[in-house]
Amino acid sequence: MRLKTLFTLLSLTGLLLTACKSNKQQDAMITANNTVLFPKGDKLTNGYFTGDAFLKPLLAKDANNDFAMGSVTFEPGARTNWHTHPKGQVLVVTEGQGWYQEKGKPAQVIKKGDVINIPENTEHWHGASAGSIMSHIAITNYKGEENVVWLKPVTAEEYNVVNKK
Amino acid sequence: MRLKTLFTLLSLTGLLLTACKSNKQQDAMITANNTVLFPKGDKLTNGYFTGDAFLKPLLAKDANNDFAMGSVTFEPGARTNWHTHPKGQVLVVTEGQGWYQEKGKPAQVIKKGDVINIPENTEHWHGASAGSIMSHIAITNYKGEENVVWLKPVTAEEYNVVNKK
Repeated sequence: MRLKTLFTLLSLTGLLLTACKSNKQQDAMITANNTVLFPKGDKLTNGYFTGDAFLKPLLAKDANNDFAMGSVTFEPGARTNWHTHPKGQVLVVTEGQGWYQEKGKPAQVIKKGDVINIPENTEHWHGASAGSIMSHIAITNYKGEENVVWLKPVTAEEYNVVNKK
Repeated sequence: MRLKTLFTLLSLTGLLLTACKSNKQQDAMITANNTVLFPKGDKLTNGYFTGDAFLKPLLAKDANNDFAMGSVTFEPGARTNWHTHPKGQVLVVTEGQGWYQEKGKPAQVIKKGDVINIPENTEHWHGASAGSIMSHIAITNYKGEENVVWLKPVTAEEYNVVNKK
């Protein structure tokens, strides 16, 4: 009877270890497919962001492309200043969830897979939500040599109102 | 002694079950983050693709954006015809692995995270590799109302040479 218990112990342990190994293999497979699209890039220190935001440049304006393209990653709570684009900007959210708000309008939730077509000369901000990172590709059109006009920071009060909803 | 074995059995089982549960929870978390960036969209039936390719339109040309943007998904083996763009095109590979080849040059492997800046009036093709899907965002600039000139299919012979390397 004691021997039987030991066999039970051994076979149960074996079964459970197999199950765990299988889970670990699945983890490895899923993790391999789950690499982020772009590296985070370098921390933005230009004074136009609140919190920790990072830029990975992807493409510079050239003879064919009248836009610059980069991937911006916002840590939870991080956001741009209020700003405008003289010829608009397109955002493609690639990770996480955040906010896009035009001045005087309610903030919109933006999340992985969303495309936001920002009109010209429209005061707005974008960034992560308080509880999630958010990464987006930004395709920023040029009007001559200018593609952005930076304004005041989004205050903690303005940001908290949006995140309390 | 037999009781001790039973306790060992129970505590070991408990520990292993905890470990397994933890793995399952991780799986669920990873799977939740592992959604594809865009839906596949509709199968392309315009005759300019070989194999199964799908288009999810993302943005139409408008007053600010002098380009169209879409996500194209190629099943393994699928590819565009040879073609040119009068004002170039930018590809952002978002899933899998494939090929980009300019006429008369060796094919380049392209994979998730790569950005390809295709020059104007340059004959080329792109598509999945034989053993992997490939999805890319295509940002296609306009010259007037034209953004692509379609040419002949990439033959099985041309495609197989590339995939045998």
